[in-house]
Amino acid sequence: MKSATSPSPAVPPGIASAADYEIWARDHMDAGAWSYLDGAGADGITARANQAAFASIRLRSRVLRPLGGAHTRLSLHGHMHAHPIFIAPTAFQALAHPDAEHATAMAAAATGTAMVLSMQSGTAIEALQRTATPPLLWFQLYAQAQRRDTLALAHRALNAGARALVLTVDAPVNGVRNAEVRAGFRMPADIRPVHLDGLAPAHAKPAPLGGQPLFDTGMLDAAPTWDDIAWLREQINAPLWLKGIMDPDDAKRAAGLGLDGLIVSNHGGRCLDTLPATIEALPAIASAVGNSLPILMDGGIRRGTDILKAIALGARAVLIGRPVLHALATAGAPAVAHLIQMLRGELEVAMALTGCRCLDDIGPDVIWP
Amino acid sequence: MKSATSPSPAVPPGIASAADYEIWARDHMDAGAWSYLDGAGADGITARANQAAFASIRLRSRVLRPLGGAHTRLSLHGHMHAHPIFIAPTAFQALAHPDAEHATAMAAAATGTAMVLSMQSGTAIEALQRTATPPLLWFQLYAQAQRRDTLALAHRALNAGARALVLTVDAPVNGVRNAEVRAGFRMPADIRPVHLDGLAPAHAKPAPLGGQPLFDTGMLDAAPTWDDIAWLREQINAPLWLKGIMDPDDAKRAAGLGLDGLIVSNHGGRCLDTLPATIEALPAIASAVGNSLPILMDGGIRRGTDILKAIALGARAVLIGRPVLHALATAGAPAVAHLIQMLRGELEVAMALTGCRCLDDIGPDVIWP
Amino acid sequence: MKSATSPSPAVPPGIASAADYEIWARDHMDAGAWSYLDGAGADGITARANQAAFASIRLRSRVLRPLGGAHTRLSLHGHMHAHPIFIAPTAFQALAHPDAEHATAMAAAATGTAMVLSMQSGTAIEALQRTATPPLLWFQLYAQAQRRDTLALAHRALNAGARALVLTVDAPVNGVRNAEVRAGFRMPADIRPVHLDGLAPAHAKPAPLGGQPLFDTGMLDAAPTWDDIAWLREQINAPLWLKGIMDPDDAKRAAGLGLDGLIVSNHGGRCLDTLPATIEALPAIASAVGNSLPILMDGGIRRGTDILKAIALGARAVLIGRPVLHALATAGAPAVAHLIQMLRGELEVAMALTGCRCLDDIGPDVIWP
Amino acid sequence: MKSATSPSPAVPPGIASAADYEIWARDHMDAGAWSYLDGAGADGITARANQAAFASIRLRSRVLRPLGGAHTRLSLHGHMHAHPIFIAPTAFQALAHPDAEHATAMAAAATGTAMVLSMQSGTAIEALQRTATPPLLWFQLYAQAQRRDTLALAHRALNAGARALVLTVDAPVNGVRNAEVRAGFRMPADIRPVHLDGLAPAHAKPAPLGGQPLFDTGMLDAAPTWDDIAWLREQINAPLWLKGIMDPDDAKRAAGLGLDGLIVSNHGGRCLDTLPATIEALPAIASAVGNSLPILMDGGIRRGTDILKAIALGARAVLIGRPVLHALATAGAPAVAHLIQMLRGELEVAMALTGCRCLDDIGPDVIWP
Repeated sequence: MKSATSPSPAVPPGIASAADYEIWARDHMDAGAWSYLDGAGADGITARANQAAFASIRLRSRVLRPLGGAHTRLSLHGHMHAHPIFIAPTAFQALAHPDAEHATAMAAAATGTAMVLSMQSGTAIEALQRTATPPLLWFQLYAQAQRRDTLALAHRALNAGARALVLTVDAPVNGVRNAEVRAGFRMPADIRPVHLDGLAPAHAKPAPLGGQPLFDTGMLDAAPTWDDIAWLREQINAPLWLKGIMDPDDAKRAAGLGLDGLIVSNHGGRCLDTLPATIEALPAIASAVGNSLPILMDGGIRRGTDILKAIALGARAVLIGRPVLHALATAGAPAVAHLIQMLRGELEVAMALTGCRCLDDIGPDVIWP
Repeated sequence: MKSATSPSPAVPPGIASAADYEIWARDHMDAGAWSYLDGAGADGITARANQAAFASIRLRSRVLRPLGGAHTRLSLHGHMHAHPIFIAPTAFQALAHPDAEHATAMAAAATGTAMVLSMQSGTAIEALQRTATPPLLWFQLYAQAQRRDTLALAHRALNAGARALVLTVDAPVNGVRNAEVRAGFRMPADIRPVHLDGLAPAHAKPAPLGGQPLFDTGMLDAAPTWDDIAWLREQINAPLWLKGIMDPDDAKRAAGLGLDGLIVSNHGGRCLDTLPATIEALPAIASAVGNSLPILMDGGIRRGTDILKAIALGARAVLIGRPVLHALATAGAPAVAHLIQMLRGELEVAMALTGCRCLDDIGPDVIWP
Repeated sequence: MKSATSPSPAVPPGIASAADYEIWARDHMDAGAWSYLDGAGADGITARANQAAFASIRLRSRVLRPLGGAHTRLSLHGHMHAHPIFIAPTAFQALAHPDAEHATAMAAAATGTAMVLSMQSGTAIEALQRTATPPLLWFQLYAQAQRRDTLALAHRALNAGARALVLTVDAPVNGVRNAEVRAGFRMPADIRPVHLDGLAPAHAKPAPLGGQPLFDTGMLDAAPTWDDIAWLREQINAPLWLKGIMDPDDAKRAAGLGLDGLIVSNHGGRCLDTLPATIEALPAIASAVGNSLPILMDGGIRRGTDILKAIALGARAVLIGRPVLHALATAGAPAVAHLIQMLRGELEVAMALTGCRCLDDIGPDVIWP
Repeated sequence: MKSATSPSPAVPPGIASAADYEIWARDHMDAGAWSYLDGAGADGITARANQAAFASIRLRSRVLRPLGGAHTRLSLHGHMHAHPIFIAPTAFQALAHPDAEHATAMAAAATGTAMVLSMQSGTAIEALQRTATPPLLWFQLYAQAQRRDTLALAHRALNAGARALVLTVDAPVNGVRNAEVRAGFRMPADIRPVHLDGLAPAHAKPAPLGGQPLFDTGMLDAAPTWDDIAWLREQINAPLWLKGIMDPDDAKRAAGLGLDGLIVSNHGGRCLDTLPATIEALPAIASAVGNSLPILMDGGIRRGTDILKAIALGARAVLIGRPVLHALATAGAPAVAHLIQMLRGELEVAMALTGCRCLDDIGPDVIWP
């Protein structure tokens, strides 16, 4: 038993939206695990803004258009995805449910959903691929202290079947995670990042008394730079994405290095607080890179209308993070599958009511000016 | 007994506004019936915006103008209406009060109010017309799976005395009605849409597991298009309105088809959430169609000042939906009549204090710039 | 004993601001009397906006200016007022305190404050003037159903010593006073407008069932028009002000008729709801009339900084309504005097900290742009 | 024992941010002492705005920049400060903790923090300098009723080792401190401004009954003017700063007099309410003085991101007032040191995540446009 949380044996009655899963999970989860999984950076301003910014964008209703044969398919790297909802990488899902990443993967497979597995998973990618119906997996990783370790991780993931790699670049240091301190959270001893076994750990020396609390620890010495990205790009012959881009200039630089895609993300508001909402940053970034590479985004997606808005403003698809954890903590795989089907249904309703038959129909003209 | 609600035998003391009826009804109605009648789409953002947008519009006070002989009359399709407040079509009023549509019709007749009867009424239009003092009725309908059924409905309503037809076009699919799911609402067995008896039901097949939750059900196959509207216009020799227009381009298209009027509506925020408030959409739509056809609007009207603002920004009259249900649930016909008289009185006060003697005096210059 | 309120025998400890008096009064007053004295029109949007608009205006601090000999005097109609705080006309002060208008007048005299006595006072103007130290009085009146009655009232007030007449023009009909209905308020039998004894009452016939709730009552037949103002101006050889002007065009018209001053007011938000805050309307009105006649304003003044802002944006002085009633209800004359002295002190602090030695120094440049 | 507050013997567990210290202190401090130390002017609008304005400024994340050798040092008056966080002058710290200014000074020394000692300290500057490891001290003073007393204070502070003098100019009169009145606060008899012993007290005569509450007291007669500043500048051969500048014109005037620096401050919102937030005023002031003299700022700093924003918008460093008192009241010197180290750490995280290696890298381009 990896956490004090007691999930429900089935989806509880009355769950009608992603928000309902959040309430259920918050009310039933161990407070420490909740602080780790759901906590935001500092004062949570960006985490709240991610959701609020969607709510403030108004849609245009368009009636009486023909909608026969409508669908939500999109093609990425030669794969036809059934819908534009991806599962975002989140660490240590065993904190939410004993079935952990296995449950999420099962729900992903059942609903035809791409799952971005976190490097900080407690379940190895090979174990997820060994099942009868494995999901389509992408693999998320952080640059390691030594380049050869980063490369080893990447090769392991690709060998295990990952279709793409996602390098997270917005968290060279930990954010200001007050919630965890206040809750006194400590990672349970039996939960560890299994993909890092055998790799060189990042050694951070303690800051001297009265010294620079971060800058004296050496944590930044191993932080990756654009040079490391350029190097990695040359080593990897598979789709390589950067995750955590919030600045148009950074996006242009990434495009210039031949990356395969960008994920606009502020780490769910868990890293630097008072960043803009991702949906606020998306249009400038989409405009900066034009059609040179595809963009995904995460942060604040709770409704099908949010997905529609993200696509209208430049994303090809979206990733869902916290809501998956909320559903997972509530009732495991069936709840995650239910969540995804609810969001798909809401997206289809939003498309029908704005007169869009397919994702390519969703342009800026569905936004009320 | 069609619901667990226990209406008051008379208007309770202290009821002074539409908001007071809402509070009374919410506190006394069966939670399931409340969720169906009052529930909004998804997060209720549009439902709240409908009201909040009125509150944020400021009026211009104009003093000392002559007000002798002031009145609120308006002429539509050759009928002189005593005032610009219509009763909006709402389904299954038996959920609010045992007297159901009979009570509403009685109040409408007593106050000289036009009532738009819903196709989803539990009371047949003929029954309402058979009373000693029937109200002026319009009839609202949805396009049916088969054109001949739509036409049959239309002819039945006109034969029964309906003065105009209102085709609702903004709900080809159900909105995201979380409130009903959360409340576990199910329609009581003895409440059904009597006007649909004998018509071909719309068959929606269930979506396959992991399939497209809406797009695979066939629900959209029967959804009407502009072609169906053009066809219906040719068949119907009576006033024909479209309800649910929120986009200026759609409004222009409707005007081009020779319709008799438009109702700017977002379905009370029950259909697609995060649409603009109707009073926000109204000016652009009024500007798009100019004087080519009359506009009504609903959504968020709770005060006489709201009615004044709607008329100032381009509506000829307004429709009242939820407040009628709140009054009906509180005390039946006398409460609905009281509600309408309160709103009329408030409108007259607002006209007097902005220096308007008649509806034509209510122009954009009553709005504080 | 005229109300169920039990005032404190002295100013309670801990009262430090106008807001503290409001809290004390609300907590101790009879709910019905409170609803009448403090209630706002309809939803109270304008009443709240009056205060909120002041809070949103930012000041400019200016330091190190010489402040020796600073004062707050202003001259109006040949009288040198010690400060720019007037007591606004409010009806039936016996609802707040047994000493009623006598207490307010005593506080006004003690603090050198001009008091605008309401026509709807329960105490006759002659009684207030008969005391040892009567305050400087202005007299507020409504136009009566018959011009000769209006003139009789005016002459009576001037004969009794009123220095100016204030004709309220923004309330030809009652506002939508829901609070009174909800509280079941009825005016106590022993409180009546003594100045109206012997004048022709305004006869309002009840509206017919289903008829126009206001327009059929004849209440507007006696409502004054600009012609009546022009006539009254010719009859009255004393300072004559209009109160309730919120529109620049109305202000210009008033200036053209030779009136002596205007009071920008929305009746404390008690009449037409969703009017702008008075401080929002003031600059446009001040700009419209230029220097042709002086402007006072009321509505939302709770702090010395509010007074400074009103003067900066075009008012010569301000009137205080509800706070006087709150202080009166709390502890009678000493509380009203204390309130006025607090506001004076706050104004002087605000002047000192924005570098203003006298009221003429308070210009638009004290407002942060 | 100087107050009823009972500080914790050590930093309580779960304290993770400046806000946590505020909550702890408010919950444990004597209400009167809290009202004095934490209370704001009038309605606290400016005090709240100071914090809220920071929250509304969005940052730009910039990834993958080289961060080796990052530091937070800055040089002022020839001294290399380890970081840009100064301790603001606050009066009578014995109200917060029995160790009073001694504890704050010890924490300042331990963390390499400059401390601006208040003239209204209960501990003499000489006593703080006599310890084994005294902090770097600046000395804050108000102009005294007599110029020679101001000069005597200045010389005493410089002789005791103060590196700079800070003349506060925004409080020639007390603000409207309602909180103290409501709490019935009186300064304990054993707490007094020891630096003023032997100087001529400012004699304020009481205002006459009904007279001008401030202007008749003579308090403003001794208020300093620009002439006094010019005179003092000539007398003092050490760094001389003005504190309390919120107006660009005042800033330019100060620059013209040869002062050594300005502190943009609204006295923590304790003086004139409804002034802008300091971070709102900072850009215009920085623009007005250009590079002619350095600017510090205080008001609302609660996070490392706030410090980053202040530097981006024109400040060289920031001062921390209330949070130091909150930490002091919680657990004395260790808590103050902990607070400063937390803020330093947060600043370093914010620099790392916006790609800044040193304070000079923090320009307007870290602000989201």
